[in-house]
Amino acid sequence: MGRTYDTVSFLSDFGHKDEFVGVVKSVIRSLAPATTVIDLTHEIAAHDIRAGSLSLARAVPYVASGVVLAIVDPGVGTDRRAVAVEVAGGEGVFVGPDNGLIAAAVALTGGAERCVALTNTKFHLEAMGGTFAGRDIFGSVTGHLCNGVDLEEFGDRIDPVTMTPGMLPISREEDDGAIAAEVLWIDRYGNVQLNVDSEEMDTLGDPVSLGHGGQTRVVHRAAAYAAVKPGHVGIVIDAYGLVSLAAARSSAADALKLRPGDPVTLRSVD
Amino acid sequence: MGRTYDTVSFLSDFGHKDEFVGVVKSVIRSLAPATTVIDLTHEIAAHDIRAGSLSLARAVPYVASGVVLAIVDPGVGTDRRAVAVEVAGGEGVFVGPDNGLIAAAVALTGGAERCVALTNTKFHLEAMGGTFAGRDIFGSVTGHLCNGVDLEEFGDRIDPVTMTPGMLPISREEDDGAIAAEVLWIDRYGNVQLNVDSEEMDTLGDPVSLGHGGQTRVVHRAAAYAAVKPGHVGIVIDAYGLVSLAAARSSAADALKLRPGDPVTLRSVD
Amino acid sequence: MGRTYDTVSFLSDFGHKDEFVGVVKSVIRSLAPATTVIDLTHEIAAHDIRAGSLSLARAVPYVASGVVLAIVDPGVGTDRRAVAVEVAGGEGVFVGPDNGLIAAAVALTGGAERCVALTNTKFHLEAMGGTFAGRDIFGSVTGHLCNGVDLEEFGDRIDPVTMTPGMLPISREEDDGAIAAEVLWIDRYGNVQLNVDSEEMDTLGDPVSLGHGGQTRVVHRAAAYAAVKPGHVGIVIDAYGLVSLAAARSSAADALKLRPGDPVTLRSVD
Repeated sequence: MGRTYDTVSFLSDFGHKDEFVGVVKSVIRSLAPATTVIDLTHEIAAHDIRAGSLSLARAVPYVASGVVLAIVDPGVGTDRRAVAVEVAGGEGVFVGPDNGLIAAAVALTGGAERCVALTNTKFHLEAMGGTFAGRDIFGSVTGHLCNGVDLEEFGDRIDPVTMTPGMLPISREEDDGAIAAEVLWIDRYGNVQLNVDSEEMDTLGDPVSLGHGGQTRVVHRAAAYAAVKPGHVGIVIDAYGLVSLAAARSSAADALKLRPGDPVTLRSVD
Repeated sequence: MGRTYDTVSFLSDFGHKDEFVGVVKSVIRSLAPATTVIDLTHEIAAHDIRAGSLSLARAVPYVASGVVLAIVDPGVGTDRRAVAVEVAGGEGVFVGPDNGLIAAAVALTGGAERCVALTNTKFHLEAMGGTFAGRDIFGSVTGHLCNGVDLEEFGDRIDPVTMTPGMLPISREEDDGAIAAEVLWIDRYGNVQLNVDSEEMDTLGDPVSLGHGGQTRVVHRAAAYAAVKPGHVGIVIDAYGLVSLAAARSSAADALKLRPGDPVTLRSVD
Repeated sequence: MGRTYDTVSFLSDFGHKDEFVGVVKSVIRSLAPATTVIDLTHEIAAHDIRAGSLSLARAVPYVASGVVLAIVDPGVGTDRRAVAVEVAGGEGVFVGPDNGLIAAAVALTGGAERCVALTNTKFHLEAMGGTFAGRDIFGSVTGHLCNGVDLEEFGDRIDPVTMTPGMLPISREEDDGAIAAEVLWIDRYGNVQLNVDSEEMDTLGDPVSLGHGGQTRVVHRAAAYAAVKPGHVGIVIDAYGLVSLAAARSSAADALKLRPGDPVTLRSVD
């Protein structure tokens, strides 16, 4: 037997409209009753691996030791692999599809140590028809993992380098010193997180010229969301150390008509 | 004292906008602190007994032993009965309104054994005004049930045959061998589940002619959602053993303009 | 060491789209693994202190002993204080921003006893950039509180009278005996709760003349939502002892075009 786990941190694109999340938790509860499941989020847009990957990366520095169950799986039923990935000397195990979803989060925890493909059907539930992988494979394997079944019981070892990498976009410095960036995330409040570290901003000064959708505007830095001048968009270093565009008690994303993946540029004001 | 329970599986149409779910869980927590509540879903459309009944039926083969608390209750405050229904030799107890919501799920667990109407107000909370049955009756009774209060303490025995039956629509074979079916469920991904078992499809061959909303189209079977040809609608046997209409990474329901309850026909292609 | 707590009742405007709720719960879980978090609601409209305050007040008579963590915090990063407020001889502690959000709920539990400002950074998480107060201050303090750290360890005592009061609107009797009221809450079902106690209605008789948005209509009292005549709007005393406008299995708010904060009048029919 391997190490047991009593926390499962669970992220998916299952939504709340259907009983998918509840059924996966029921499977875990039935197998491993002492386990607590912490829902990270289940409202990742359907099939949006990129958004799920970013959300998981933001959360993972804070999750409790244990299993991280992550399911955004548009390729379910194809030949994409289902995997379990041990990290941090066994302090954590990621369970999910091998489609890039978990790659960034795994890297943040120090990288994959042991990996297996979840091919041993002894630890799966038998489906009534087609397979609901969240329930029949990922949920079931998670329950057994919590109970102390060793990782290598779940299937064949695989080489971590064969796993699908994440696709986090990197910002780029232009010839003129401008930063060509991309919108990573728009949160509930309409704050717009960019793929730009706070230090990258240092050379640009304050204010900064923001280019978006063919327009430019001058934006000032602010110490907190609430410190942005009413009616304006400002720049805030957010709680992840990244540059965010924010508006005072309103949505910067709406004001700037930005969506995840959109390009923006940050440039010194001449 | 009766058997104690440490899991409550909870389904409702309470939504997440208000604090209804949290208050019911608080009532259970205060009475029976060792109990874990698993949320199945709370986003059943308001008052939609049929959708709640189907969701519960899909979930119930997977729920952990314990209490199943199910509340979709448009008739609250009328003479509809509140009930508790013991199943499977006491391994589970359903608590909810007697309006057809739990009937299919109860049947799936082997049928009702002991049933009571929740008339003993000793186990209810006193309301500040009108009764919030989820909080004052169902939640409170659930907490006491978990603590081992015997079913028959909660009220008068009732005959299971007097309970409101479920109303699951049955598909019908037409004279020409076509199947007249109905949409049971549209899930978050837009997959369209029909009230047709996989075996019923066997005589129709592949592809099949699908009639919906006055139109017909030819649809092919696929082994998994992701195996449906891009831009097409296909037929997949889903994880409940039922026939589903699916599109590749998009919503079949949107493509076909189908909603729960809509009629469709499946017919051999000549 | 102070008293330990094993339940956290958690309300916020974080929504479910992002992983905010999950991350705060992860912080609590990592610090205080034996704690159970009960979600009251996280779908308070962004920055809506009034709605959050009312939701918390409705829930608080039912929450289990322990910590009440409440976060609707448009002023995060400004000089608004973060506080912990002990009530009921230590049976409960409210943790949240000092912006009026918790005032009504604190009053309902008997009023503030000891209060501190959460200034001791020893019990905060170090942020990677800006502070996510829910994670780095409120969540972290909550975990330590559950573990038995005494309230006064978290920062300087403050005088409860210096805390921001709640702003619950009071209904007013007009010279002609009419009640000038306001919409407090519209729930998922479209029921419209007014700031009017059931006793205030006693002198008005039945039916009552309802004025809203420049119109008047005659409304009858009903014993329960389901007892309102189909196609009509009725008056029901709700489960909080307050007057609600309700329609039969449909939304009274839609029928009357009412929103939270809108004025209405209730008047005797001549």
